[in-house]
Amino acid sequence: MIGIGVIGYGYFGPNIARCVAEASGTTLKAIADPSPAAQSRAATRHPGVTIDDNWQRMLADPEIDAIAIATPTRLHYEIALAALMAGKHVLVEKPITPTSREAARLVAEAAKRRLTLMVDHTFVYTGAVQKIRELIDTGVTGNLFYYDSTRINFGLFQDDVNVIWDLAVHDLAILDYLLPAETLAISATGAGHIKGSPENLAHITLYLEGGVTAHLNVNWLAPVKIRRTLIGGSRRMIVFDDMEPSEKVKVYDRGVEFDERPSQEEIRRILPAYRMGDVWTPHIPVKEALVTEIEHFARCITNGETPLTSGESGLRVVRLLEAASQSLAQRGHPIDLSPLRAA
Amino acid sequence: MIGIGVIGYGYFGPNIARCVAEASGTTLKAIADPSPAAQSRAATRHPGVTIDDNWQRMLADPEIDAIAIATPTRLHYEIALAALMAGKHVLVEKPITPTSREAARLVAEAAKRRLTLMVDHTFVYTGAVQKIRELIDTGVTGNLFYYDSTRINFGLFQDDVNVIWDLAVHDLAILDYLLPAETLAISATGAGHIKGSPENLAHITLYLEGGVTAHLNVNWLAPVKIRRTLIGGSRRMIVFDDMEPSEKVKVYDRGVEFDERPSQEEIRRILPAYRMGDVWTPHIPVKEALVTEIEHFARCITNGETPLTSGESGLRVVRLLEAASQSLAQRGHPIDLSPLRAA
Amino acid sequence: MIGIGVIGYGYFGPNIARCVAEASGTTLKAIADPSPAAQSRAATRHPGVTIDDNWQRMLADPEIDAIAIATPTRLHYEIALAALMAGKHVLVEKPITPTSREAARLVAEAAKRRLTLMVDHTFVYTGAVQKIRELIDTGVTGNLFYYDSTRINFGLFQDDVNVIWDLAVHDLAILDYLLPAETLAISATGAGHIKGSPENLAHITLYLEGGVTAHLNVNWLAPVKIRRTLIGGSRRMIVFDDMEPSEKVKVYDRGVEFDERPSQEEIRRILPAYRMGDVWTPHIPVKEALVTEIEHFARCITNGETPLTSGESGLRVVRLLEAASQSLAQRGHPIDLSPLRAA
Amino acid sequence: MIGIGVIGYGYFGPNIARCVAEASGTTLKAIADPSPAAQSRAATRHPGVTIDDNWQRMLADPEIDAIAIATPTRLHYEIALAALMAGKHVLVEKPITPTSREAARLVAEAAKRRLTLMVDHTFVYTGAVQKIRELIDTGVTGNLFYYDSTRINFGLFQDDVNVIWDLAVHDLAILDYLLPAETLAISATGAGHIKGSPENLAHITLYLEGGVTAHLNVNWLAPVKIRRTLIGGSRRMIVFDDMEPSEKVKVYDRGVEFDERPSQEEIRRILPAYRMGDVWTPHIPVKEALVTEIEHFARCITNGETPLTSGESGLRVVRLLEAASQSLAQRGHPIDLSPLRAA
Repeated sequence: MIGIGVIGYGYFGPNIARCVAEASGTTLKAIADPSPAAQSRAATRHPGVTIDDNWQRMLADPEIDAIAIATPTRLHYEIALAALMAGKHVLVEKPITPTSREAARLVAEAAKRRLTLMVDHTFVYTGAVQKIRELIDTGVTGNLFYYDSTRINFGLFQDDVNVIWDLAVHDLAILDYLLPAETLAISATGAGHIKGSPENLAHITLYLEGGVTAHLNVNWLAPVKIRRTLIGGSRRMIVFDDMEPSEKVKVYDRGVEFDERPSQEEIRRILPAYRMGDVWTPHIPVKEALVTEIEHFARCITNGETPLTSGESGLRVVRLLEAASQSLAQRGHPIDLSPLRAA
Repeated sequence: MIGIGVIGYGYFGPNIARCVAEASGTTLKAIADPSPAAQSRAATRHPGVTIDDNWQRMLADPEIDAIAIATPTRLHYEIALAALMAGKHVLVEKPITPTSREAARLVAEAAKRRLTLMVDHTFVYTGAVQKIRELIDTGVTGNLFYYDSTRINFGLFQDDVNVIWDLAVHDLAILDYLLPAETLAISATGAGHIKGSPENLAHITLYLEGGVTAHLNVNWLAPVKIRRTLIGGSRRMIVFDDMEPSEKVKVYDRGVEFDERPSQEEIRRILPAYRMGDVWTPHIPVKEALVTEIEHFARCITNGETPLTSGESGLRVVRLLEAASQSLAQRGHPIDLSPLRAA
Repeated sequence: MIGIGVIGYGYFGPNIARCVAEASGTTLKAIADPSPAAQSRAATRHPGVTIDDNWQRMLADPEIDAIAIATPTRLHYEIALAALMAGKHVLVEKPITPTSREAARLVAEAAKRRLTLMVDHTFVYTGAVQKIRELIDTGVTGNLFYYDSTRINFGLFQDDVNVIWDLAVHDLAILDYLLPAETLAISATGAGHIKGSPENLAHITLYLEGGVTAHLNVNWLAPVKIRRTLIGGSRRMIVFDDMEPSEKVKVYDRGVEFDERPSQEEIRRILPAYRMGDVWTPHIPVKEALVTEIEHFARCITNGETPLTSGESGLRVVRLLEAASQSLAQRGHPIDLSPLRAA
Repeated sequence: MIGIGVIGYGYFGPNIARCVAEASGTTLKAIADPSPAAQSRAATRHPGVTIDDNWQRMLADPEIDAIAIATPTRLHYEIALAALMAGKHVLVEKPITPTSREAARLVAEAAKRRLTLMVDHTFVYTGAVQKIRELIDTGVTGNLFYYDSTRINFGLFQDDVNVIWDLAVHDLAILDYLLPAETLAISATGAGHIKGSPENLAHITLYLEGGVTAHLNVNWLAPVKIRRTLIGGSRRMIVFDDMEPSEKVKVYDRGVEFDERPSQEEIRRILPAYRMGDVWTPHIPVKEALVTEIEHFARCITNGETPLTSGESGLRVVRLLEAASQSLAQRGHPIDLSPLRAA
């Protein structure tokens, strides 16, 4: 049984605390938050758990094996580093840190101390994303062509990060899990339309190794909520619509077929032939992703496995967020990521 | 009554011929197409109309006041120029020509001869786009923030143009009509996934004067057909879903409100306040857009009015298509359009 | 090649004439309608075809093998009988006649003269209904439990028939094709809300042999158009949504499982166990149903086959319409149809 | 502050207990349930609240002003009667009792003792139903024509009641609130398809005073979940789709217009004229209905107001359920409710 302390009990911390309490293999030991109101809410919902305004004390508690960090992003680095140095395993909200330099430092520290460092890329643990990974791995989709995601809604504006760091981070985390290919270049455009607020919409294109392209459309100021991803493959295509209550993943037996090796002469004349087949919606059992994730965290701590959403994946995602931000500031100027690969 | 000859009776020509016959104010006089099969289809559907394999003869016919060109794009320039020089008014399929140089030449020729030159940007004549223009002009939306369009489907691959010239042209034409603001810069990304075929997906961002951004997502290889445009304004937002059989345009009374002139100090602390109000779907009477367009063409010829989709708008759209293609070839490198404005 | 004359060129006649002209195996020879406006429209669209104001002359034409009747329902009997007596095969709009007595007379006359008598139950010839029949016949659905259809829209009011004879006739025809079981009893409710007009909404329940129930909800005064049928079976369930542009038929691998033969004691304690599986949308090639139907009509004439929608099926449907009308007038009082079976 | 004890902590009791704790004006004092597992769950979620296996003890507690009953339906009567006789106000789950005789007895007892007796018809307290009532009361819909509800899903089978008592009860409660008109007659059909289980689908038509008809389609064995109600009026029509996450109520400006008093001669010739106008989706603020309901319960106790969902409304609904069951057993035979009105 892994004893866990939760730091931060604002917007997302209560979910983490509840799931730590529900998951098998973990016990909720303590919650820390500087706000008296947050402490009071925590005490009501989790009688018997230590409530504190000071997270440092948690690090000295020998009953606590691991720390879950749900504070504002700017505090992640300081707390995670202190926790690792105190010998605690760490689960940290996304994005792992505001800079890749800090993320790299945490990854190194965890490796040195052989501690589990995991980032909360929750979508990776949903039944839908697990099913899509399985469809790709078993060849159902064939060679991947593209990933095209629309993740838009009305609100919530964040005051410290722009829409890329708030919403695109989800798709970059999903991509990191689904497609192991390296990103060669990134181009991002976008704008802020509310004076005094960061960018509220952005469009990001990633050029991946092997010719796959990914495109993310994120928007805080859309009249409707859309959470839809299209994945195009040479054999089949997937629509993942997370707003559908039950039929979230649909597989379209649809593709383009043609003679694979036409002569130069023929290429000019051959038109692709379309194939329209059935649509299939695999049943996906319902389980709360955050509970799955916390149980995975506990198992990784116990067995020494590398988490699906390791510190390294958190670092890779932050590097892409940095590159996207850099491109956005230059109206889409493509950022070459080969130096990053070399590093 | 304007006598009209239609050149080209392949994919779109039959629609034009049918609507010329149906519209009030126009008479279908002749159809020309080099293909015997096309001529035979034309003869069956339009008994009494002259059918020819040679379009030049049409230009000499004094009963023909105007020419509608529905040939492959590469032939537009030669035919349109000859028609103008023969004193005929011209309606030409989109895009007006494959290059802006040719488009500019046609515009100049039409101006010199005081002939009507119009491009078939059909969407401009739909009830939906007319209603959206009215909503913008009467202040319903407030200041525009963004235009975000998804225009994707499965097929048809074109063998001579890429997906930008085939699909994005529609949105550029709609934008040209809805938003008179100049485009300052354009960034486009995309890829071709089928060997020997042009780009099948692309993502284009336009930076317009006044801070408006426009984004177009076009894709020939999507598992589902989507035709949806979001328009964000400071007072209200619009969703235009062209796949809806009747409720195509929805107006969301949704926006962000805050003190308009906060001090520097306040800006940092003020969070936008969300306003969630009603949704309203204006009734849009059904009329075929192409008939409306052809009646407008006849009226412009008769009264000397400038068409809503004049040769100049066709030229502007082709300039944006050229800039988007240039950016696409450089993975999103932004193309500065100020020189174009100066010109 | 079967020569066909079309009688009636009002609301539905033009579709029939067009499809007779398009179908392989049939030639459109003549069109008769008393209205000069209808004759003029027919002449424009079908140059070369005999247009007449008098249908009797058609029966004397030896080049005409078969008659298609698209007049108001009240004229079906007189014309169909005359045509049969003149030795013509007959295709007649639904409902075949306003009374079962007349329908039975037509059936007998056609049998006596060995002529093909077919009723235009168009839905039977759609790819969707053909696919559903295949799913039932191959055991995909298992034992059928129920058929539940909602067929509602705004308008068109008919002045001579109520909503049952206008809309429910479609579902009764589909049922007649899908489920050969006899109807044991029928109960119908409904009302007319517009003074001087017939019933504009109705709800009909059919009790079929073997425990299957069918329910039809028809409404001329609904704010939205719905065309959806649920079919429940012991192994799988079907949703047929005719408003979907392409994914019209979905098969849900969903059912209730339990020990088939529990003892009396056990029955009380056993709760059904739910099974939730995948959803599957078979691809259905697009072909206009009316063309398929007319080609089937020609084949039946040539080969002497019994049509899928024979005069007998038209008669069965009219008997159900009569029983439903009778029940509707008595606020749902069930009509026992066993005498009908005995007959 | 009204002290409340909750009896029954199985399927719905936990919701009631949680909302009593959250609502302003009420305090959760005690929970009773015979099951040790339920007691343990209650103790975990509500530390500080008395947990008991015996509900009788609650009636003696002077700190408890009111009892909320969430037991199986068959126990409602005994507990509610005992609570009223002990001087407690009572909120009881729907349906109020299994028979109208028992419901009438509870109503009489509460009246005699001037205690508040309220039934948990939760939908009445939703923002959607409140908005619909407002649209009817302010004349937006005009004269009502019909109410047509589809309330179907897959599971849960109840072992003691059929689908009418489980699902149709919701619509009857909504109708009781929206339309004060008396029900003149009721016809119900349906069937049970699972051996040893009660009816799993049913269709109910109500004939109301003034010509309004209501129809309810309920089904436990449907492949998809639908919760949609159409309300037709002479001026406008409403679609209430409870599966929509935010746009639940849409108002269609759609109707039939014609000269109100045509002569007998004219009636035959006048066809209704259709009016197609805008669609409007009023914004409905989100608040949990059960909290609203419990706050209303507390206010009624304090001020002596009659609840919107009084014991009388619970009794009226049970009378309709009984009549529907009676008709269902006779395959739709209409049940005349005039004697009931006289009573």
